[in-house]
Amino acid sequence: MVLENFRPGVMQRLDLGYETLKDVHPGLVYCAISGYGRWAPWPPLRPMTRSSRAGQGVMSITGDADSAPLRVGYPVCDTIGGLAAFAISAALVRSLRSQEGCFIDVSMLDSSLTTMGWIVSNQLIAKCAPQPMGNHNFTASPSGTFQTRDGVIDIAANKQEQFETLCALIGRPELAADPKFRDREDRKRHRPELTVQIEQGLNTQTAAYWDEILNRHGVPAGQVLSVEQALGQEQVAHRGLLMSLSQDDEEITVTRSGFLVDGQQTAVDVPPPRLGQHTDEILRGLGLTDTAIAGLQEEGAI
Amino acid sequence: MVLENFRPGVMQRLDLGYETLKDVHPGLVYCAISGYGRWAPWPPLRPMTRSSRAGQGVMSITGDADSAPLRVGYPVCDTIGGLAAFAISAALVRSLRSQEGCFIDVSMLDSSLTTMGWIVSNQLIAKCAPQPMGNHNFTASPSGTFQTRDGVIDIAANKQEQFETLCALIGRPELAADPKFRDREDRKRHRPELTVQIEQGLNTQTAAYWDEILNRHGVPAGQVLSVEQALGQEQVAHRGLLMSLSQDDEEITVTRSGFLVDGQQTAVDVPPPRLGQHTDEILRGLGLTDTAIAGLQEEGAI
Repeated sequence: MVLENFRPGVMQRLDLGYETLKDVHPGLVYCAISGYGRWAPWPPLRPMTRSSRAGQGVMSITGDADSAPLRVGYPVCDTIGGLAAFAISAALVRSLRSQEGCFIDVSMLDSSLTTMGWIVSNQLIAKCAPQPMGNHNFTASPSGTFQTRDGVIDIAANKQEQFETLCALIGRPELAADPKFRDREDRKRHRPELTVQIEQGLNTQTAAYWDEILNRHGVPAGQVLSVEQALGQEQVAHRGLLMSLSQDDEEITVTRSGFLVDGQQTAVDVPPPRLGQHTDEILRGLGLTDTAIAGLQEEGAI
Repeated sequence: MVLENFRPGVMQRLDLGYETLKDVHPGLVYCAISGYGRWAPWPPLRPMTRSSRAGQGVMSITGDADSAPLRVGYPVCDTIGGLAAFAISAALVRSLRSQEGCFIDVSMLDSSLTTMGWIVSNQLIAKCAPQPMGNHNFTASPSGTFQTRDGVIDIAANKQEQFETLCALIGRPELAADPKFRDREDRKRHRPELTVQIEQGLNTQTAAYWDEILNRHGVPAGQVLSVEQALGQEQVAHRGLLMSLSQDDEEITVTRSGFLVDGQQTAVDVPPPRLGQHTDEILRGLGLTDTAIAGLQEEGAI
């Protein structure tokens, strides 16, 4: 299996393109990841990272009417390009069955659009242009983020009984009987006023308190956590998502794979390499002598 | 292969849990997706969707100092749970080699944390808490979103020569010689002032114009597109990402898979089913007679 994410054309120039390698190893699975794919009217030199983020459409729907377009807080298009791992594994299943290899061409733009789910379906099927909706879900109310005594909580009391439970738990049972908030449509019409009322109730306790008590009573809710808090959750520790590795004289912590197999985390047994750490080993594997490698080092080529 | 995303415990109650099915089919690959995983101190009834989004940490870093925490404009945690497809394909490779099946337990929380890349590494390894950074990249300048005559463009002129090219293209070559903007550190210190200067230059043309000309001259840039514009790009059409399917008397458009195999899009040959469309067919496959199915329909059970 070969995986590369050079610009289209670079592997051919190095004489390591798919056609060349396939001649040596006919069952080869070869995967190339690029910003826009290999067969493209766009010039292959077009830089990819930023255009991908802006050109995917996700910035246009992140934030609210005032703050959109906004970036997602981490490089989500690069992440989604990781569906290459799925494509490769699926191709390996086929190659085990039929001995056939293939060339997989992953486009970060295509991958991002494909995985945007109902946002893209709304546009394509319902012809309804997605709008930036901030933190409120415009199909329900109360459904969004709310201020508590010490931080923000995300609440989705979309069903009638969840709304009634919420009112009771925040000590404001009368809200559920108020004609302005009687059913979902009423609540959508009076959303700003309802938000003020709910935040008055939530203000008596911390976000962590409300997270626990709302979920316990069947109201979907989540304290908005920092990355540090997210990694520190009991559940994360329990499942062993994080592991320590020794790198030189340091202990570093990394994440495992995001899924368990037969109750076990999949193993990572080496730390991420330092820059160039395996260069000599790889060159020796390719048949270069120590003298040849030292020569390359002297020339500054490696 | 079995894939389900019921709450933990539901498949056991239906007598369709992994242990039961494995007895019938020893090489079974069984995958369960849930908000927090199967082996959990958290109660399995805890609602998952909203807590997952808030509890992943990504809301805390989306937006700027004023607008964070913000939701991503599409349900990114649910999307990332799709790495189940990778886990299943990888397990199928193993089962083809060894006849061994397995139980794969995908946690949306774990998956999300694992795929947040350098944000999580910054926290775990550098002990540096990620902050909401809005649309500007705080390690470089100019690197962020800028207003043009008709819309917003994302520009990452992170390298010295990219900055100089940008200044020349917007008709402001003198900016590159200004001591306030001489090197990257100078530009980071004078970011707001530099943004004003660059936007004055960009204001002469449209975002589409700048997208084309900046990329052609090696400055990474991307017009911020709406979802409709993103789907309408020449590149998307060229690669055949979208396809039409007939559903009853309607034509609907869907996306394909995000990658090409040997230059071809992978095929989707049936439209998404209507609610309950295949219920009779499945029940007949399980051996129920038409009379029995009609009975279930009368009872309102299906």
